[in-house]
Amino acid sequence: MAVYTDINEDDLRQFLKAYDVGELLSYRGIAEGVENSNFLLHTEKFPLILTLYEKRVDEGDLPFYLGLMQHLADRGLSCPLPLARDDGEPYGRLCGRPAALISFLEGMWLRKPAATHCRELGVALARMHIAGQDFELTRKNALALRGWVDLWDKSAARADEVQKGLENEITEELASLEDRWPVDLPEGVIHADLFPDNVFFIGDKLSGVIDFYFACNDFLAYDLSICLNAWCFEKDGAFNVTKARALIEGYQSVRPLDKEEIEALPLLCRGSALRFFLTRLYDWLNTPAGALVVKKDPLEYLRYLRFHRSVETASEYGLERT
Amino acid sequence: MAVYTDINEDDLRQFLKAYDVGELLSYRGIAEGVENSNFLLHTEKFPLILTLYEKRVDEGDLPFYLGLMQHLADRGLSCPLPLARDDGEPYGRLCGRPAALISFLEGMWLRKPAATHCRELGVALARMHIAGQDFELTRKNALALRGWVDLWDKSAARADEVQKGLENEITEELASLEDRWPVDLPEGVIHADLFPDNVFFIGDKLSGVIDFYFACNDFLAYDLSICLNAWCFEKDGAFNVTKARALIEGYQSVRPLDKEEIEALPLLCRGSALRFFLTRLYDWLNTPAGALVVKKDPLEYLRYLRFHRSVETASEYGLERT
Repeated sequence: MAVYTDINEDDLRQFLKAYDVGELLSYRGIAEGVENSNFLLHTEKFPLILTLYEKRVDEGDLPFYLGLMQHLADRGLSCPLPLARDDGEPYGRLCGRPAALISFLEGMWLRKPAATHCRELGVALARMHIAGQDFELTRKNALALRGWVDLWDKSAARADEVQKGLENEITEELASLEDRWPVDLPEGVIHADLFPDNVFFIGDKLSGVIDFYFACNDFLAYDLSICLNAWCFEKDGAFNVTKARALIEGYQSVRPLDKEEIEALPLLCRGSALRFFLTRLYDWLNTPAGALVVKKDPLEYLRYLRFHRSVETASEYGLERT
Repeated sequence: MAVYTDINEDDLRQFLKAYDVGELLSYRGIAEGVENSNFLLHTEKFPLILTLYEKRVDEGDLPFYLGLMQHLADRGLSCPLPLARDDGEPYGRLCGRPAALISFLEGMWLRKPAATHCRELGVALARMHIAGQDFELTRKNALALRGWVDLWDKSAARADEVQKGLENEITEELASLEDRWPVDLPEGVIHADLFPDNVFFIGDKLSGVIDFYFACNDFLAYDLSICLNAWCFEKDGAFNVTKARALIEGYQSVRPLDKEEIEALPLLCRGSALRFFLTRLYDWLNTPAGALVVKKDPLEYLRYLRFHRSVETASEYGLERT
C-alpha cells in the first residue's frame, strides 16, 4: 500500500500538457505497489497509470525499465506501455520526481491462484524471456550473490533478534551458495519480481504482467525459481507440487529448459528464497515503527529456503524425469 | 489513505452477482478515505466505487447514508448514486462487512482551492440543504455538543501532553459553548464533513460531492461553519476573508441566511472548530504508533478556534452588513 507523494491538479495538468491524452477527468491514488506512488487517471481518451518514482528507484535505470516494457509490448506481450511525450522522452518530472504515464491494464491479481493460473504464468514467463532476447539495453542484477552478501553484512549482527541461530544458518547458506552458484546457464532479461500481485487475470486468462522495476539480466531459470517460491507455497508453508508442475510445464511448452538448468533448479530456488529473505529481513530490522508500510515476515522465506535445501533433484518440483 | 480490508476475486465476483453491472475487468484499492475501504472497479458497463464499511461506521446508519445519496441524486445533485441490488437492497455483504456499490464520480479534489471554488461550494451546499428538506429519514448528530463533552471527558486529563494549558482552555470553551449554543436555528440534513477532499471539480466547475458518512440532522448554518473552517484558512493559519465571502455569497445566492443564523455564525464556527479539534485530539492520543493512518494535528483546529473567539460579528467573515 503506498501513495508517498500527493500531487495537486495544477502540477498534474502541467505535466500532462506534454502528452496527447485529452482532458483530465479524475485521478485517484491507488493502494498498491510499495516502491513508487501510483495514481489511476481517467482522461477523455482512456484510463492511465501515473507512476512517480520514489527514492528506491534509480533514475538512471528508467530507460531500461520503460524501454523494456515498450520492447515487450511491441512483441505482443501484454504489459503496460509507457506513453511517449510529445518531445519523445519516455518520462517527465512531477513534484520533483521522475514520473511516467503508462497504459492501464485491465485485470485482477489473484489472492488465491490455482494450478491453472500457474500454467498460464509459466507460458507468459517463457514468452517474456524469448521476447527479451533482442532487447538492446542491459542492467546488472543488483540483488544477485554480491548483493546478498552486502545485505547480509548489514543485517547479520542483529539476525538473532528475529530468530535464534539465524546468524549461523544464513552465514553457512551464503557460503554454500557462493561455492556452488552456477556460472554458465542461459541468460537474458528477467522480471525478477513476478509475485502474484504483478500478474493480472480476467477470469482464468492471464491478461497482463506489470511492475518491471526489478528487471535485469540474469539466468532465465532463476526467474522461474522466483515464481516457484512466490506462487507454489500454500499459506501453511506446504509446497504445492501440482502448482509447481503446472508452472514448469507451462514454461517448457514455450521454452524447454536444458539439462543444466534443470539440475541447477533446487540451488536457484535456494538463492531466490534467500534473496527475498534478505530484503525482508533488512526491512524488518530497519523500517521505523510508524512507517506507512506493512512489513513482510522474513521467516516465511526462511521456511522456503529450508524446504529447497531438502530437495535433491528438480523432479521434486514436479519436473518429469528425463 | 486506507485500504483496511483486502478482497479476493472470487468473493468479489460472488458479491457482484446481485448487481446488473456486466463482467468485472479490474479492481484496485484506492488510497483515499480514512473510515472505510474503497476500491475502484472497472466493469464492462461503467466504473464503480466499492465501499466496505469498517467498524467506525454503524450498520444501522447505512439506510440513512445511502438513502440520502439516492434522494439527493434524484433531485439532480451530483453525488454518488448507490446501485440497487437485484433484490432491491441498497447494500450487501463482503468479507463479513456491509458493502455497497456506488457510481464513480469523475472529478478531482483541489489541494489548493481558490475563492471561485469556494463560491461553487457555497452554491452546492445550499442546494443540498434545500434538496434534503423532504428526506424522510433522520439521524442525530453524534458529534454535537453532547458528543463533544463525551470526547473531552476521554481526553482532558492528557490534553496538556499536547500543549500546556490546553485542559483549562478547552474546559472553559466547552462551558461557554454549552451556555450560549443556539436552540432555534433552521435545521435539516447536513453533510457535516465537507472538506476539500470530499468535493470534486473538473476545471473550475464543481462536479460532485462525496462521502456522506457523517451526514445527520442539525442546524444548516452549522454546516456552513464547517466549510468556513475547512476551506478558508491558509496553510500559515491566516483566515482568507475573500474565500469566506465567496463561500457565503454562493450559499446565499441559493438560500439566504436569516438574521439569527448570521448572528450565530461566529459561535457556530467556534463549535465546528472545537468538534474537529476534539476528534483529532482523541485520535492523536489514542492511535498506536504503528497504525497505517496519518494522524492530523489537533493544534491546527485550536488555532482556528482561537481566531473565531476573536470574531465579534459575522461581518468579519465577509458578510455584508445589513
